[in-house]
Amino acid sequence: MITVRPASIADADSIWEIIEPTIRDGETYTLPREMTRDQALAYWQQKDHEVFLAEENGEVVGTYFLHANQKGGGAHVANCGYITSVRATGRGVARAMCEHSLEQAKTRGFRAMQFNFVVSTNQRAVRLWQSFGFEIVGRLPGAFLHPTAGYVDAFVMYRSL
Amino acid sequence: MITVRPASIADADSIWEIIEPTIRDGETYTLPREMTRDQALAYWQQKDHEVFLAEENGEVVGTYFLHANQKGGGAHVANCGYITSVRATGRGVARAMCEHSLEQAKTRGFRAMQFNFVVSTNQRAVRLWQSFGFEIVGRLPGAFLHPTAGYVDAFVMYRSL
Repeated sequence: MITVRPASIADADSIWEIIEPTIRDGETYTLPREMTRDQALAYWQQKDHEVFLAEENGEVVGTYFLHANQKGGGAHVANCGYITSVRATGRGVARAMCEHSLEQAKTRGFRAMQFNFVVSTNQRAVRLWQSFGFEIVGRLPGAFLHPTAGYVDAFVMYRSL
Repeated sequence: MITVRPASIADADSIWEIIEPTIRDGETYTLPREMTRDQALAYWQQKDHEVFLAEENGEVVGTYFLHANQKGGGAHVANCGYITSVRATGRGVARAMCEHSLEQAKTRGFRAMQFNFVVSTNQRAVRLWQSFGFEIVGRLPGAFLHPTAGYVDAFVMYRSL
């Protein structure tokens, strides 16, 4: 059973262990592949991010952050970033985190959630977000340089809460 | 005649004079309307922003910033924010800045430019960007709380360089 809980400063090692392979791959996040541990944690745990951890049998299997996607007149729309441990893919971790994040966002009074940059080759993610009611509301032509596929489109995905 | 030049630290007062009314209005930027001068300048002049000033007859009439919209695999797409002095609207200032920014972006090797959040009620801007070849590639339903119009859509706009 996958459970999700807020992360604390003490979880930095676990978070880094989860996010490093995805950053190094460079296939899904628009982050520099050569980011250091400190840079990556500073990004993931930045001041306005609420960070959560997914655990299965006491093992950390994923992490996500939740924050307002914009400020001012855009502050009612949430944004999240999710990363599943490479050792735990296909076990419903992202699904558990997304479900958790939608509830958290609703509790905090957000009216919608937006994903700004879903790489089109990341079809597993696209299908998963669609299964949660997210719609592709925008297509960014050639906006992502994939390490092996070259320039590919990215999607903007959105759903009301 | 409108000319555009890089801004320096010494231009902080001019920049603030230009951007304050737009931030206070809260009709076009997703920034807190109550932002202080220091917060607003820290945002506009943040480390990875190149900032420019538009001048007409020695008077500062507009400012814009240029930067990479994303990092990593998304770093080939530029993003800009433009603000025209409330005293100089309708004189082609935004047009001059946009033209300048497209050339600057090309010179720096960007392959495209993206505007992440064009408020749909800001029709003058939408038409201007369209006249420069930007297309509406996404619509974010109700993503902006306009101070008088309520919840309105925002557009994602994009063009190749």
